[in-house]
Amino acid sequence: MHPSIIEGIIEFERRYYRKFMLRTHTCGELRIEHIDKKVKLCGWVQTVRDIGPFVFVDLRDRYGITQIRVAIKDSFDTNTENYTEDFKSKKKELLNKLGREYVLQIEGIVEKRTESNPNLDTGEIEIIPNSIDDIIVLNKSEVPPFKIEDNTDGGDELRMKYRYLDLRRNVVRENLMLRHKMAKATRQYLDDQNFIEVETPVLIKSTPEGARDFVVPSRMNEGQFYALPQSPQTFKQLLMVSGFDRYYQIVKCFRDEDLRADRQPEFTQIDCEMSFIEQEDILNTFEGLVHHLFKTVKGIEITSLPRMTYADAMKFYGSDKPDTRFEMKFVELTDIVKNKGFQVFDSAELVVGICAKGASEYTRKQLDELTDFVKRPQIGAKGLVYVQCKTDGTFKSSVDKFYSQEDLKAWATAMNAEAGDLLLVLSGDEHKTRKQLNELRLEMGTRLGLRDKNTFSCLWVLDFPLLEFDEEQNRWFAMHHPFTSPKPEDLHYLETGDLGKIRANAYDMVINGVEVGGGSIRIFDKTLQAKMFEILGFTAEQAEAQFGFLMNAFKYGAPPHGGIAFGFDRLCSLFGGADSIRDFIAFPKNNSGRDVMIDSPSEISEEQLKELSILVNMKK
Amino acid sequence: MHPSIIEGIIEFERRYYRKFMLRTHTCGELRIEHIDKKVKLCGWVQTVRDIGPFVFVDLRDRYGITQIRVAIKDSFDTNTENYTEDFKSKKKELLNKLGREYVLQIEGIVEKRTESNPNLDTGEIEIIPNSIDDIIVLNKSEVPPFKIEDNTDGGDELRMKYRYLDLRRNVVRENLMLRHKMAKATRQYLDDQNFIEVETPVLIKSTPEGARDFVVPSRMNEGQFYALPQSPQTFKQLLMVSGFDRYYQIVKCFRDEDLRADRQPEFTQIDCEMSFIEQEDILNTFEGLVHHLFKTVKGIEITSLPRMTYADAMKFYGSDKPDTRFEMKFVELTDIVKNKGFQVFDSAELVVGICAKGASEYTRKQLDELTDFVKRPQIGAKGLVYVQCKTDGTFKSSVDKFYSQEDLKAWATAMNAEAGDLLLVLSGDEHKTRKQLNELRLEMGTRLGLRDKNTFSCLWVLDFPLLEFDEEQNRWFAMHHPFTSPKPEDLHYLETGDLGKIRANAYDMVINGVEVGGGSIRIFDKTLQAKMFEILGFTAEQAEAQFGFLMNAFKYGAPPHGGIAFGFDRLCSLFGGADSIRDFIAFPKNNSGRDVMIDSPSEISEEQLKELSILVNMKK
Repeated sequence: MHPSIIEGIIEFERRYYRKFMLRTHTCGELRIEHIDKKVKLCGWVQTVRDIGPFVFVDLRDRYGITQIRVAIKDSFDTNTENYTEDFKSKKKELLNKLGREYVLQIEGIVEKRTESNPNLDTGEIEIIPNSIDDIIVLNKSEVPPFKIEDNTDGGDELRMKYRYLDLRRNVVRENLMLRHKMAKATRQYLDDQNFIEVETPVLIKSTPEGARDFVVPSRMNEGQFYALPQSPQTFKQLLMVSGFDRYYQIVKCFRDEDLRADRQPEFTQIDCEMSFIEQEDILNTFEGLVHHLFKTVKGIEITSLPRMTYADAMKFYGSDKPDTRFEMKFVELTDIVKNKGFQVFDSAELVVGICAKGASEYTRKQLDELTDFVKRPQIGAKGLVYVQCKTDGTFKSSVDKFYSQEDLKAWATAMNAEAGDLLLVLSGDEHKTRKQLNELRLEMGTRLGLRDKNTFSCLWVLDFPLLEFDEEQNRWFAMHHPFTSPKPEDLHYLETGDLGKIRANAYDMVINGVEVGGGSIRIFDKTLQAKMFEILGFTAEQAEAQFGFLMNAFKYGAPPHGGIAFGFDRLCSLFGGADSIRDFIAFPKNNSGRDVMIDSPSEISEEQLKELSILVNMKK
Repeated sequence: MHPSIIEGIIEFERRYYRKFMLRTHTCGELRIEHIDKKVKLCGWVQTVRDIGPFVFVDLRDRYGITQIRVAIKDSFDTNTENYTEDFKSKKKELLNKLGREYVLQIEGIVEKRTESNPNLDTGEIEIIPNSIDDIIVLNKSEVPPFKIEDNTDGGDELRMKYRYLDLRRNVVRENLMLRHKMAKATRQYLDDQNFIEVETPVLIKSTPEGARDFVVPSRMNEGQFYALPQSPQTFKQLLMVSGFDRYYQIVKCFRDEDLRADRQPEFTQIDCEMSFIEQEDILNTFEGLVHHLFKTVKGIEITSLPRMTYADAMKFYGSDKPDTRFEMKFVELTDIVKNKGFQVFDSAELVVGICAKGASEYTRKQLDELTDFVKRPQIGAKGLVYVQCKTDGTFKSSVDKFYSQEDLKAWATAMNAEAGDLLLVLSGDEHKTRKQLNELRLEMGTRLGLRDKNTFSCLWVLDFPLLEFDEEQNRWFAMHHPFTSPKPEDLHYLETGDLGKIRANAYDMVINGVEVGGGSIRIFDKTLQAKMFEILGFTAEQAEAQFGFLMNAFKYGAPPHGGIAFGFDRLCSLFGGADSIRDFIAFPKNNSGRDVMIDSPSEISEEQLKELSILVNMKK
């Protein structure tokens, strides 16, 4: 090793170690009352302004920005022509220390600024170092690949590759600070409610029900695999059997799904379970949590959460997660539009519309856009019928040929429309049409500015169906999961075989059209649990192999219990007013499940494969 | 499906749903001031005592035990001969509801007990149900495979298989409650110190340095693997580069090591990192954490933590994690024992002893036991020399043949021994002898009752060597990890090549002879970091492939930083006064890395293997 490198290292280390205390204050801390104090700050060079005899530095750390004013002592001459060589060389020495993102330690006196900066918490003061020597470069920086500013010039890929630099940006740091606050407030609330945090294992067992598992080959148990948990579901139920009574955990979960935008292979849940409760107790407890979060993190008082059945949510919003920041409920028109010669409506199973308040003056172009919107393949409507309720009391519609003013007035009345409103009507197969109208409703909400990210509308959706029939696989699936209990008053459908009519003791919390949490009252009777597995197509042997431990546990006095899990990443992004969860995760993965910063996943050595008794078997 | 089964299920569900509120109080809550209140409790049948016309039930939940007294109304006759048929059938009906571990809901009136039980928080009251019908069986239980009591009859394997029942036992539940309190107090302290909790990823990248990784095949990136983190080391350093300044996380980590007793493949760390600090700042901050934990969780005030260099720890205790609950320091006798004709000592590199206070009257048998102890293969000493310092001022030793009373007195003086003490001396190769004497010292501490589990002695061990040379592999290894910084004053050894003499800015926290935490000030200079990888035998390409992202990050203004990680499972077991960490983990694995309760790891389907592009390749 070359001696000069060692000297370089020694010099570097001495720079850091030569002073004992690295800082006396943070860059967000100093105020008018600190004036005349000698302070030491550490941080990164945000900006440098070179103004004649002065150089101004904005020094940044996690806590804020503080202005440093360095005066080159020999000259206060504002005329650059008059600068001495000595001055020029000193300035050069100084500017050499002030590269973008250099890490500095600065000692100086706090002074009042002549003009304060109201945008900065420290805007009333600045720091005056005694000399250039009071500015120590703790570390240099190459020029970053993108600007460390709120509006950066870095694209997504670049920002992800240099995520450690992206995290320096205020916006991203504040997102993670918000996440920290959310976790803290969640724990505070649940601790106060006597919940116990219990860590459940990460190396568990693969189960075929649900999404695909990530698996982990076991070296010590040849040919066998652990799986990473999709949720701690069975463990939290076992904790209830153990009598833990109230459990929670903020916990990583894993799903090996094809990643759509904004899905991550690892994600975080607020996972909770309670014993000796009924649905009402869960709803109240977690209404309390959401109330507490909004209050402590956002300073917002949420009034009591409305409740809506799944049936009503589908009927009035065409979605089990309605965005209730705005009304615009579905109104069924099937009965009043038939038999007027309009074949499309006459043959439709369902005709249903929404009333867009104040949108009657939409232009032809705007209306065409809406038609194009619903006809997009992702939505798949065949067309759109509109009725403009003109301010003069007349109606103009795309189906004037078939419907008289009288007819259209009847529609308007049914839809509670007033002069100035726009009616938008879809028709067709009942299920599909509702889904399509849901998309159109959301689009209209956006267009009319009714979906403000800083307005929050929360509700419970209740009484989900227990089972869904999958036509392709010709079998029943659990809508929530196989441990969800049916409503006792619907249990007779087990006898009649109308399985689709059985409602579950299941509930979702929906905020602004996003399902942020969901849960259920669980089955705690071993016979019913076995029956559920049978309905879901498990043989007794399969049920035993996969969930034997749970069914076994139910033999020894399982208490009535239920719980809920919140998607923590999603909840944070919602509180942060963002669409994407990615910037609320410190080190997210991209849509191929890759961490482009650490370049993972990656190949492993032959030796590792051999130890694990596996081979790579490329599909090619 | 047989109708009777459905009826059974319906009946079961109705039992639970027929009353709205499941309980008004917990089983640990009722006191004298609740007398005459009508209450509803839920819990498990702990014990049943059938005493003539009364049946007493101890009902248990997480919060405590409450006594239920059921009187069979028709008869208060104490003479069993006089019981009517009606009475007998009612009693039978009652006892049928009271199986061991049955889950009950009981409604009744709180009454004052005639004789209170001072061992129970609820010992002054009991609950009187109005009739047998006020006792509802929420769920039955088979007879558990072992007793749900503090001293259970269940062996380890059985308890692990039925862990959900084991967790019902007070002792195990209290361990997990302690763990919850520890986590809560840790977060409270670190939150107050401005640390931000940041979740780092679980699916990361395999690195060959350190222990074996668990790996996760990536379905979407064929032939590639994620690894589970052995610690979030590099991520927390990146967070410092990002300016997060103070980070913490209570986080699962994974190591695929051959499991010794009390090692778990997944374990939990309190993981912390700070920027703009020096070693002193870290020591103070985490001294504060330990102080806070002892105070809030155990109600113990720990005085300021003593500090000991690694060199002193090895010199005086033969261990880098000395148990300082008792003194019994090593005293070197090499110089004063030589040249008296005792070949063993004359040829020894080191002769070193301990003074066991008050043990001079050890019997021949006890002394033989100690000799056998040090000669065990795990310890490997050739023999043990003892000197009994008799109360009459004489000395009796196992080497009287070679050493005069005068000689032995000199030993005693050197070792600060008094009449009544026992000197125990080992000799041989320096390194091995110290290790052997460490074991003997701990054994003597145990024998003399100096290692009370409810006494806590904490210290910092400082100034660890940076590197260790591995003779077998003929290369240097990082004693802590490759990111640990050397002491600047030792950096010149890089030039002389005396790498073993370089001390690190590394520190361990030791409590009662257990290393509960360790950390270091990190390298933050890219040149030095590259040099460290070179010393550790990485080629530039390997370093780039494994840690390129970190070295890259260091180009962009890395701040001085350092951190620490505590073994949370171990810390909890220490606070709980237990030797094993297993009972402080809700669902631990056994020594083969198996979870015997869920029977994991297990085989996965051919389809899963195919999707993951891997094959099982048994070594056979």
